[in-house]
Amino acid sequence: MNAGKSTQILQVRHNYHERHQATLLLKPATDDRDGQDFIRARVGLEAKVDALVFPDTDMRDLVRDREAAGTLKPDCILVDEAQFLTPDQIGQLCELADVRGIPVLCFGLRADFRGQLFPGSASLMALADTIEEIKTICWCGKKATMNARLVNGRITFEGPQVLIGGNDTYISLCRKHWREGQTAPPA
Amino acid sequence: MNAGKSTQILQVRHNYHERHQATLLLKPATDDRDGQDFIRARVGLEAKVDALVFPDTDMRDLVRDREAAGTLKPDCILVDEAQFLTPDQIGQLCELADVRGIPVLCFGLRADFRGQLFPGSASLMALADTIEEIKTICWCGKKATMNARLVNGRITFEGPQVLIGGNDTYISLCRKHWREGQTAPPA
Amino acid sequence: MNAGKSTQILQVRHNYHERHQATLLLKPATDDRDGQDFIRARVGLEAKVDALVFPDTDMRDLVRDREAAGTLKPDCILVDEAQFLTPDQIGQLCELADVRGIPVLCFGLRADFRGQLFPGSASLMALADTIEEIKTICWCGKKATMNARLVNGRITFEGPQVLIGGNDTYISLCRKHWREGQTAPPA
Amino acid sequence: MNAGKSTQILQVRHNYHERHQATLLLKPATDDRDGQDFIRARVGLEAKVDALVFPDTDMRDLVRDREAAGTLKPDCILVDEAQFLTPDQIGQLCELADVRGIPVLCFGLRADFRGQLFPGSASLMALADTIEEIKTICWCGKKATMNARLVNGRITFEGPQVLIGGNDTYISLCRKHWREGQTAPPA
Repeated sequence: MNAGKSTQILQVRHNYHERHQATLLLKPATDDRDGQDFIRARVGLEAKVDALVFPDTDMRDLVRDREAAGTLKPDCILVDEAQFLTPDQIGQLCELADVRGIPVLCFGLRADFRGQLFPGSASLMALADTIEEIKTICWCGKKATMNARLVNGRITFEGPQVLIGGNDTYISLCRKHWREGQTAPPA
Repeated sequence: MNAGKSTQILQVRHNYHERHQATLLLKPATDDRDGQDFIRARVGLEAKVDALVFPDTDMRDLVRDREAAGTLKPDCILVDEAQFLTPDQIGQLCELADVRGIPVLCFGLRADFRGQLFPGSASLMALADTIEEIKTICWCGKKATMNARLVNGRITFEGPQVLIGGNDTYISLCRKHWREGQTAPPA
Repeated sequence: MNAGKSTQILQVRHNYHERHQATLLLKPATDDRDGQDFIRARVGLEAKVDALVFPDTDMRDLVRDREAAGTLKPDCILVDEAQFLTPDQIGQLCELADVRGIPVLCFGLRADFRGQLFPGSASLMALADTIEEIKTICWCGKKATMNARLVNGRITFEGPQVLIGGNDTYISLCRKHWREGQTAPPA
Repeated sequence: MNAGKSTQILQVRHNYHERHQATLLLKPATDDRDGQDFIRARVGLEAKVDALVFPDTDMRDLVRDREAAGTLKPDCILVDEAQFLTPDQIGQLCELADVRGIPVLCFGLRADFRGQLFPGSASLMALADTIEEIKTICWCGKKATMNARLVNGRITFEGPQVLIGGNDTYISLCRKHWREGQTAPPA
């Protein structure tokens, strides 16, 4: 959370556009935090996605249908919140990369607030050519690798993986402070 | 497979020993390819493990019991074939790192021959501070990221995750050639 | 050039500020492309630097003087265009990191249009704890690792390392196309 | 020093040979610590180099002459102690990679005992497609990034970059302990 994933996906898109190359910007529909079809970075950037991905979307059809409608083959596919893709969709993205030669960059969280991979992340971790980390920091100064869920200001390790419309917030912590439930420096 | 994981774990151990620091070299007992208690690298190196890890081993007890018996706290814990650890054991290793301050380096495969994470790898991918790749190459020259299972010389995508005493072998391929089942250059 | 360095430095600053931590944002005065004291990212972000760094600035004094004037010790020092720092200044930043425990992140180019390290980059490449790459792409789709200088639309390999007020522009290319002077796909 | 560079180069060579692919194993002649034409890893591995590289060797000729003599084009060029190559030779290796399509892997130190890049390392740092770190540890447990020269057991920061036949030894330290000259834990 808040490490700058959305900033980075919008920067990559900008890099392609500066070279007059086409991108296909995607986002799973299950995430509605930002409005259904916008990617917004808190640092102050936003862009409208080219398409929302639903659980039954076939990623290959998504590209093919756009080509049939006259859109050029994208020079790059960019997916935000990729942890919410299904394993099948990750497999389809691999096919687009391997067979059609389209670079695919997926941005997302690896693990949920309990420290367990999201289904989309598990497939990505198994199949990705390259795994890169976007870094942020814990309050202690160390690298924050975990995302804690806070309910009424306290860390919880229980509850559903995705919680929509709840009274929860998230905070980035190093693993030690996530495990210990320490969300701020001792007073 | 064959990328040099065992070589690297033995090199790290050697680096610690050259500095007169103690290592704890571990391996899950489920893997008996090399003899139960040896780590052997095909390049021509080997070492006896300090302990085998069984599915019900508590990694914290393993360290505590050795300390109780007079062995120094290790300066580093090294685990080979870490994909075969249980998720609980990965959590215990995190605790040894975070609470007792012992660096833990786990070496292993990320995915099986079907392209699915091993249980131990899934936990490591979710919780590790740092994920690093040991590279090897496909016959085509690209980075090999997948391990294909060959039965009678042909790639299979079916069967149990771990196959002991079978007629199978493994080969490292890039994802494209793994998917296509092409194990060698076209004749 | 144009890979997103400025975006990333502003994102890191934002991450610290979201945690109510203080940053010290610096830039060598030799670079006046953006206005002397602003960092501007083409994607649409900007920030005023906290101080400009001149060739005779002592980085330790810069921190000390601010502390003497009542500013808190920064939680992080961020330097843009760090290729223009002097080797002495890189050494002083190492001291701030090692002795005073302040994380220092330097963003910059590694090599000039001729493929030679900048003096600041050479020191950073020799002394940095961690070297990370911010990626962008060549027109051919490969990773662009070189920055070519164009004069009247043609690549040049001659001239001073820094050219101020000239008729030149820069383009990111992979090493092969930089060497061959091919700045766009064959017509 | 002693991080495992030689082990790793011999492992990569082994990986290629297991796939029945040809490697060209090279080493600058200026380094005679191991015997002129052997690469030896302290962990217990060694191999004879295919050719020694002299300061006036043209790396392209070296490949061409072997091909003229009937040796196949190598699938990979491996260079140990690459910090001792000349900048021209690094440029020639880039040409072999970019024009002839031969992967080139160079292993070496980045900086000397004074913290200054070797000439070969400076060119590699400026031109390499990918820069990877082989890690080892300081006595304090942190990553060792510096190589200190010891004369009679004490760190020195003066003297020639390369010292042959001297009474010196080297030790890997983190930057803080290199700078402070502390080669072992306080007694």
